[in-house]
Amino acid sequence: MKLCRIRTEKGIRPAALDETGAFRDLSTYIDDLGEVEIAPAGLKTLAALDLAKLPRIKGDYAPILRDIRRLFCIGLNYHDHATEMDMPIPEHPVLFMKACPVTGAHDPIIIPKGSTKTDWEIELGIVIGQTAQHVTEADALDHVAGYCIANDVSERDFQMNFGGQWVKGKSCDSFAPLGPWLVTRDDIPDVQALDLLLQVNGVTKQSGNTSTMIFTVPQIVSFVSRFVTLQPGDVIITGTPPGVGVGRKPQEFLTPGDTVSATITGLGEMRQSVQAFGR
Amino acid sequence: MKLCRIRTEKGIRPAALDETGAFRDLSTYIDDLGEVEIAPAGLKTLAALDLAKLPRIKGDYAPILRDIRRLFCIGLNYHDHATEMDMPIPEHPVLFMKACPVTGAHDPIIIPKGSTKTDWEIELGIVIGQTAQHVTEADALDHVAGYCIANDVSERDFQMNFGGQWVKGKSCDSFAPLGPWLVTRDDIPDVQALDLLLQVNGVTKQSGNTSTMIFTVPQIVSFVSRFVTLQPGDVIITGTPPGVGVGRKPQEFLTPGDTVSATITGLGEMRQSVQAFGR
Repeated sequence: MKLCRIRTEKGIRPAALDETGAFRDLSTYIDDLGEVEIAPAGLKTLAALDLAKLPRIKGDYAPILRDIRRLFCIGLNYHDHATEMDMPIPEHPVLFMKACPVTGAHDPIIIPKGSTKTDWEIELGIVIGQTAQHVTEADALDHVAGYCIANDVSERDFQMNFGGQWVKGKSCDSFAPLGPWLVTRDDIPDVQALDLLLQVNGVTKQSGNTSTMIFTVPQIVSFVSRFVTLQPGDVIITGTPPGVGVGRKPQEFLTPGDTVSATITGLGEMRQSVQAFGR
Repeated sequence: MKLCRIRTEKGIRPAALDETGAFRDLSTYIDDLGEVEIAPAGLKTLAALDLAKLPRIKGDYAPILRDIRRLFCIGLNYHDHATEMDMPIPEHPVLFMKACPVTGAHDPIIIPKGSTKTDWEIELGIVIGQTAQHVTEADALDHVAGYCIANDVSERDFQMNFGGQWVKGKSCDSFAPLGPWLVTRDDIPDVQALDLLLQVNGVTKQSGNTSTMIFTVPQIVSFVSRFVTLQPGDVIITGTPPGVGVGRKPQEFLTPGDTVSATITGLGEMRQSVQAFGR
């Protein structure tokens, strides 16, 4: 199932994609998509619906869930990206957080005030569907509702300078687009065999495959659940393949007017314009 | 004003302390204490109430706000604490996050599974009352609703080992007690002149004063607001004075059965028992 939230003239509506790619309105059955609806029982109910009988709706993508409370991130999780960042291959998943609200798949990326180094990072996002505390790798996927595309937009000057931890370079407004859909786990036969592609103005900047992750999706969920009790609606983004702006020679960063496209096999495309602060 | 949320037989009730220290029920006027009620207009309405006319209620402390979405932390913000941790004095506030849900002032601290080094950190908490983005130090306090006591409970093995950033040692369940009250800003004449005292089983472990902070409350709010758009209901905890367990010789950590008391001038006392995981 491909679930999403659509901004319509009547407000945000929960929707599912039918076989033709049209949005079918789920609001007869659920008020919104949130932690209850993406839990196993909620997904089972939605999977039983006959989408062909539901009204078509039109509109653009809102954030994929009503309320994403916590956005966890794994850094340096692709061998080649760790190398381009001149960082050692980590022995454990490198856990950090983004603090900004999640945005939709077509919402603009806004260059923060004072930024000179706003950078892209396409990532696979894991959406938690069931409480996970001290889960084993073998059981980890049972706690995953599905997957989405993420862009871990990063301001490298804010991230690397001014002391402290990474969160301050990861949390400006608009820095957490997710989408376009929450694709349920059963739709992704092998999460470790997905192509990732990020283009800026049509030029490929990042290409990779989840097969080259240092830590797999089950390993990540199991690891994080040792330290934090994961809850439905939490999202973990899982690191980025090579090709980020700060790692290129010469370095490249986003500027207003750019268009960023991010695609992952089976998860669709996010397509966003880049805007100046305060526009 | 001293505002709090009280667990009663009829559910959680918003309350204010009267002159005698009794809880007065605010639920005739507001449903709960949240981002709307602690915004400037909300606090003005509450300040105009005659508490003597409101019913007394009894119960114990719930988390101070209905919905604390983000808990930001400043590390190494007291000169003497940076020294005891063998860390350099930072040039900028060291920003990181805690991911766990906030608990109440009398809720237990739970030793996580596998923990050998669960430690205490009394801190002054800043509760944001108004959106803050790129605010100057001069204007910063206008965006603060008030203050509370915090304990930045930390598992030092989880924090310092297993790679990555601090969040994983800061985010186990029960690691973010705040309370007992949200004390509004007008009740604290000088936030940089407050005594902090933390005792374990009646023995003083930490004592300090906010006058020895490296970065002041206005400097912290201004700094964080450059990187994150702060929202009403966000909380920033501001670093801990010397005397944490990991910095003591020999090191000391919490064990089940301990009682932790944390007091700050004008902000009351948090008093918590320590329990084993899974009890």
